[in-house]
Amino acid sequence: MRIRIPATSANLGPGFDSLGLAISLYNYVTINPYTCQSISVKGEGSDKPRLKVNNVFVSIFKEIYQELAGEKRSFRFEFENNIPFSRGLGSSSAVIVGAIASAYHMADIKVSKETVLNRALVYENHPDNIAPAVYGGFTTSVVVDDMVKTLKKEIPDSLKAVMVIPNRAMSTAHSRTQLPKSYHMQDVTFNSSRVGLMSAAFFSENWEMLKYASWDRMHENRRMKKLKELFSVRKIAVQNGALMSTLSGSGSSFFSLVYEKDAKHISEKLIKSFPNFTIKVFDFDNIGFKVEK
Amino acid sequence: MRIRIPATSANLGPGFDSLGLAISLYNYVTINPYTCQSISVKGEGSDKPRLKVNNVFVSIFKEIYQELAGEKRSFRFEFENNIPFSRGLGSSSAVIVGAIASAYHMADIKVSKETVLNRALVYENHPDNIAPAVYGGFTTSVVVDDMVKTLKKEIPDSLKAVMVIPNRAMSTAHSRTQLPKSYHMQDVTFNSSRVGLMSAAFFSENWEMLKYASWDRMHENRRMKKLKELFSVRKIAVQNGALMSTLSGSGSSFFSLVYEKDAKHISEKLIKSFPNFTIKVFDFDNIGFKVEK
Repeated sequence: MRIRIPATSANLGPGFDSLGLAISLYNYVTINPYTCQSISVKGEGSDKPRLKVNNVFVSIFKEIYQELAGEKRSFRFEFENNIPFSRGLGSSSAVIVGAIASAYHMADIKVSKETVLNRALVYENHPDNIAPAVYGGFTTSVVVDDMVKTLKKEIPDSLKAVMVIPNRAMSTAHSRTQLPKSYHMQDVTFNSSRVGLMSAAFFSENWEMLKYASWDRMHENRRMKKLKELFSVRKIAVQNGALMSTLSGSGSSFFSLVYEKDAKHISEKLIKSFPNFTIKVFDFDNIGFKVEK
Repeated sequence: MRIRIPATSANLGPGFDSLGLAISLYNYVTINPYTCQSISVKGEGSDKPRLKVNNVFVSIFKEIYQELAGEKRSFRFEFENNIPFSRGLGSSSAVIVGAIASAYHMADIKVSKETVLNRALVYENHPDNIAPAVYGGFTTSVVVDDMVKTLKKEIPDSLKAVMVIPNRAMSTAHSRTQLPKSYHMQDVTFNSSRVGLMSAAFFSENWEMLKYASWDRMHENRRMKKLKELFSVRKIAVQNGALMSTLSGSGSSFFSLVYEKDAKHISEKLIKSFPNFTIKVFDFDNIGFKVEK
C-alpha cells in the first residue's frame, strides 16, 4: 500500500490549538510485508541516519498494527518526505495520522476518518494540525472528553497558499515555553472574537473578512521575535494583497492565503526580499490522508 | 413612522462580547412630529415615571436627528416595550439601534445597516447585542478601529428559542465586576476553540455540534452563582434535548436553542420546575430592526 498525507498550517493567527488547514504538499509512505524490518528515506530526513533506527511513524504503526492484527509482522517502509521538519508545516501530524491510517489498512480493518483523528489525539494532544491532516480543507476543532469534534469546509481552487519556509527551524516545545500562562481579558476577547469571524468567513466563503479576522494577540509576536524577518514577510504579503498572513503553527514558516490572481505577484515580491528562504505557491488539499493502493 | 427592534441573546456560552442572535420578541416605537415633546410608555417600564423624563431612546434620537436634519424639532414618542429590562435580553441595544435608525428615517436620510451598527458601537462598546439587533439571525462580530465587522447567518424555522426569564434582574455593570481580569491559557483555548466551532455549526447548519461548542469557562458559572436556580434550568433543558443552553448575555435570563419538535416538552418541564419564572418559546428573528411606515 501507499499512503499520502498533506502538510498543514495551524493556528491561522487567533485560532490557537483549534484552527487549521491542509496544503497540497505531501508525504508518501509505501508499506509492504517483508522478510525483516526495512526503512528507506527519500527527501526530507534522508540525511538523518537516526530516522532509520528511531522512526516515530514505524513505532506508531507497529503498536497499532499489533493491536489490530493480534500478531507481529515485518514490513518494508519507504518514505518519500516532502514536508520539512520543524517548520510549522505539520510534519509530526502527518507522521501520526499516516501511521494510524496505514496500520488499519495493512491489518485489513476498515476505519473511519473520525477514529483515525481520535487515535491521533493520543500522540498529539491538540487537534489543530491532525484534524486537517485527516479531513483536508479548513477545520475548526474542539476536544471533548479526549475526543476531537471537528467541522470542515472545503477551500476553493480560486485561493492559493503562499508559503515562506525559512532556512532555520523553530522547535514547537521551545516555542510553547515562550508563551505566558495567562492572558488579559481584552486580549482573550480580541482573539476569540476573531476565531469566530474566521470560521464564519471560511464557511460562508466571505474571503474579504479574513483581513479582519486573522489577527492575534496571544502568541505570534512573541514567537516571531525569534526570527524578525517574519514581520517583513507579513508586511510584504499584506501590502501586496494577501487576504491573511499568519505564522504557520509555531513557526518558522509563514502562511499567506491569497486570491489565485495575486499568487504569482506576491510570491515574486517575497522571493526578491528573502532569497535565502524557500517560497512556494500551493493549492489547498480538500481530501486529507488518502490510501493509494 | 413605527420601528420594530428584536430582543437579542449574546455571548451564547463561549462567545464573550462577540456572538449573538435575535429573537422574535420586539419593542415598537411610533414617532411623529408634534407640537411639543411627548412620551408614552406601554408594557415594560410603563410603571417607571423616570422613563418619561430621562429616556435614553429620546436622548440618542434627538442627538442624531439634530446632527442630520440641522434643526431641533418636537416629536411624540409612543413606546410599546416587550423586552424586559436588565434580564440579558438586549433591551439597551434595542433602544440604541432603534433610536439611531429612526433618527435617520425621520430626517429622511437613507442609511445602511452597517452605518447604524457602527454608530451604535459609540453607545455600547461591545457588538454582541447590537449586531443581531441590526441584522437579525446569528452574528459573529469583531471590532476593528471602532468599526464592527460582522457575518450573519439566518436561523431556520425548525429551531426555536426557549427563554427562561427570572423574576429578578442582574445588572450588566455589576455582573462584569465579578469577572477576573486575566484567564489561564487552558481556559482561553477552551473558549476560543468553541467560538470557532459554534460559528461553523451555525454557518454549516450542523446543529448537533452546538452540544459541544456551547460551553464556557470564563463567565457563566461566576454569574450564575448569583441565581443558583439557573444551574437547574440548564440541566433540565439539556436533559430534555436542548442543543445548547446558555446564560443570555450577562443574565438573568437563560437561553436554550431547541429543535421545534422538542420546544413544547422542554418549556413544559421548565414551567413545572420554575413556576415563578416567565418561560416562553420564541421564533428567531432573521431581519433585525425594521421600519414599518
